[in-house]
Amino acid sequence: MVWRGEVVQDYVDLLACVWSDGLPAEALLSWLDVRRRANRLAVERVPFRELSGWEFDDGTGNLRHTSGHFFSIEGLRVRTDHCWFGSWTQPIIVQPEIGILGLLVKRFDGVLHVLVQAKNEPGNIRGLQLSPTVQATRSNYTRVHRGDGVKYLEYFASPRGRGRVLADVLQSEQGSWFLHKRNRNMVVEALDDVPLDDDFHWISLCGLRRLLLRPHLVNMDTRTVLSCLPPEPGPAGRKLPTPTTSFAAAVAQSLTEGSTALHAMGEILGWLTDVRSRRELVQQRVPLKETAFSGWRRDEHAIAHKGGDYFRVIGVSVRASSREVSSWSQPLLAPAGPGLAAFVTKRIRGVLHVLLQARTEAGLLNGPEMAPTVQCRPLNYRSVPAEHQPAYLDYVLSADPARIRYDTLQSEEGGRFHPTRRTATSWWRPRTTSPVEVPQDFRWLTLHQILALLHHSNYLNVEARSLVACIQALS
Amino acid sequence: MVWRGEVVQDYVDLLACVWSDGLPAEALLSWLDVRRRANRLAVERVPFRELSGWEFDDGTGNLRHTSGHFFSIEGLRVRTDHCWFGSWTQPIIVQPEIGILGLLVKRFDGVLHVLVQAKNEPGNIRGLQLSPTVQATRSNYTRVHRGDGVKYLEYFASPRGRGRVLADVLQSEQGSWFLHKRNRNMVVEALDDVPLDDDFHWISLCGLRRLLLRPHLVNMDTRTVLSCLPPEPGPAGRKLPTPTTSFAAAVAQSLTEGSTALHAMGEILGWLTDVRSRRELVQQRVPLKETAFSGWRRDEHAIAHKGGDYFRVIGVSVRASSREVSSWSQPLLAPAGPGLAAFVTKRIRGVLHVLLQARTEAGLLNGPEMAPTVQCRPLNYRSVPAEHQPAYLDYVLSADPARIRYDTLQSEEGGRFHPTRRTATSWWRPRTTSPVEVPQDFRWLTLHQILALLHHSNYLNVEARSLVACIQALS
Repeated sequence: MVWRGEVVQDYVDLLACVWSDGLPAEALLSWLDVRRRANRLAVERVPFRELSGWEFDDGTGNLRHTSGHFFSIEGLRVRTDHCWFGSWTQPIIVQPEIGILGLLVKRFDGVLHVLVQAKNEPGNIRGLQLSPTVQATRSNYTRVHRGDGVKYLEYFASPRGRGRVLADVLQSEQGSWFLHKRNRNMVVEALDDVPLDDDFHWISLCGLRRLLLRPHLVNMDTRTVLSCLPPEPGPAGRKLPTPTTSFAAAVAQSLTEGSTALHAMGEILGWLTDVRSRRELVQQRVPLKETAFSGWRRDEHAIAHKGGDYFRVIGVSVRASSREVSSWSQPLLAPAGPGLAAFVTKRIRGVLHVLLQARTEAGLLNGPEMAPTVQCRPLNYRSVPAEHQPAYLDYVLSADPARIRYDTLQSEEGGRFHPTRRTATSWWRPRTTSPVEVPQDFRWLTLHQILALLHHSNYLNVEARSLVACIQALS
Repeated sequence: MVWRGEVVQDYVDLLACVWSDGLPAEALLSWLDVRRRANRLAVERVPFRELSGWEFDDGTGNLRHTSGHFFSIEGLRVRTDHCWFGSWTQPIIVQPEIGILGLLVKRFDGVLHVLVQAKNEPGNIRGLQLSPTVQATRSNYTRVHRGDGVKYLEYFASPRGRGRVLADVLQSEQGSWFLHKRNRNMVVEALDDVPLDDDFHWISLCGLRRLLLRPHLVNMDTRTVLSCLPPEPGPAGRKLPTPTTSFAAAVAQSLTEGSTALHAMGEILGWLTDVRSRRELVQQRVPLKETAFSGWRRDEHAIAHKGGDYFRVIGVSVRASSREVSSWSQPLLAPAGPGLAAFVTKRIRGVLHVLLQARTEAGLLNGPEMAPTVQCRPLNYRSVPAEHQPAYLDYVLSADPARIRYDTLQSEEGGRFHPTRRTATSWWRPRTTSPVEVPQDFRWLTLHQILALLHHSNYLNVEARSLVACIQALS
């Protein structure tokens, strides 16, 4: 029995550390380098008049594609009581359709592996990043029987007989930039043999999570799908690997079902209902030209706010070495200055809890969603009075570096957003400095509670989901 | 021990049958009659020009209150692939705020009682109906500290110290008539003594459910809040009362946690995600005057569709004998012809399941929600080709009367809707005639699964929630 126990332990260590097909991290990065050379994008900023197929509508000023497809840049008028200024008008991306972000997984020798795609997008900081197996638009997957070339799409569009659906849920995109945008986050376990295509590679789930410790490598779409994957039930008789740090142990414990939470789930849901009911968020689509009254100016190169705040809409021309469409041009949204997303975490009654805020964002469909403890672009607050600075921003910026458990640059989605560095950071503070009593818009949740909420739509925003994926890199 | 068991059984029978404070059904109905005499509304149809404070906007044609408060009637353009005609424009009620529907409950001698209000609304068919303890607008409850006279509001606006929150969830209103409207459904258990006000009465939960067997007595708002109330955990040592019919036994069993469901909850959520992703629903607010292109005509008395279908918007003038505001006028929406909402139910693997459809409605916020097996106004389909008639409509209309378990007229909400009789009907069919295999937009759920979904927003539409309340009258 002792001998058998040792074998199981060896096997579990393997599960914790193995890379795809035994491919060590360096080998996967070399493969990425090879794909990067085969898969170049030349991206060049161009004035709007050189955006082929795109035009400003005469009446509304909206920026749209002449085909009516893709997306448009329109105006949104918002009235809220949440921010320190109550109402404003802004440009916003309108794309009223639901796309699929699909991750195909499969067990090799009992170890769950993920099929990642090396994909280039015009807004990617370092070219190729690891994206989900499938990123498809609604028209891709409703027409899948006609065969339109999105590889592996059949596992997500009609999984029956091919795969077992492990996760399937609509989640929001960036609420400050998208109007009511949702994507379908899916994880499907393949039941048959999966032919391996160029630009795709199997990597163990654990190995992919470890890559979240590196900057700009695992793209935003992969991070959100990973966050929706339910935790693997430990195989009968196996123990989890011994965590290497006490923080890792705390994360692993917080992910388990039995961990004691400060608040029952009913209280958490009631709290969000209360914030959603009290906080006013009235949204009205308006012509883009009406954003001029709020200080948005358009010249031939950009739509920008007079103070340089928030973001700009710009145009890029793209030439690809390996796409079906070898060149195109499109607008991108370029955020003004780096973003910061941080979890403040704390052991309460011995269990690691994460502090989430119910945050109103201009374009969210259901009102406030749960966001990281701090989520902002600090530059936007440089002229904001102290009392209206985001809660916990100072606390996070002045944190003892020894208490910072995760501090890695991650990218926004490269198909819509122009490079701005975003710091995705998870912070852990000892109980002596972080109080359990928090403002009305904040609540402490265990990781297990967060994963349970991720079975449902529109509870956690995309920035929080991204950090949920990242914190699991530490377990 | 046998003696003790008998006492418990007596007590449980009491729980199943007791009326408020020992008040038998006839006495409660007499009380309602007294309140009805004290609380009259004289409702008269008037042309739009006699609607005091209401006007049609010159530019848009929208019908709105000059104060900007209350609600407005605007236009909505819809594009969908769900209906047999794909796109249309219609008038729609716009009221972008979340109200509270709150039910105060309290145990008397261990039996859960509900505080109902005898309330009159201009659209009520028989005057007073039993409404929730509180129906309040957002401005009511965000200004509660100023004291604006909504009785018992404090239990819902700031329950801490006064009550224990049993349910608190945002749910949708009628998607065909309201744009993105949600109300907060709350149940709070009072911890202190509750002074009883005129127009309010305690009734046991069980007694209130029995009143759902009578027509037009328990209003729509009460029904939706009742549906969100989690089932009472059986007190330790007590058995549930012995059901009087085998259908009642099947309902009671389907409500319990251990009952075996045809589909796991993950499959149900994935199914709804799939329908929400595939079904197109593009909504665009437009000026009311643009609905003219879809056949909507306005004269001095009504906004109506040229064929008389769907609904009309009319004006009423109201004089009340007992309101703070003793007279007012307002628009109402008058549906064209009676509605039908029916559950087809079936024992599968020995457990009662309910057949729900994922139904697209013009004004829903999150796309399709789960609706009754059949939900339509049959008159609207009189000129629709047979292949586009609603699924299961014929099946329900031709059902063997001996198999109809619930068939009672219930009302729409009387504050916005003009009387049209709605048949809320629950049907039970033996397994020999109703197949387990159903169309892609339909799924079988147990009642326990349905109650679990009702902890979350926007899974079940208001018609389905109303029937969920009604079917529990049978358990």
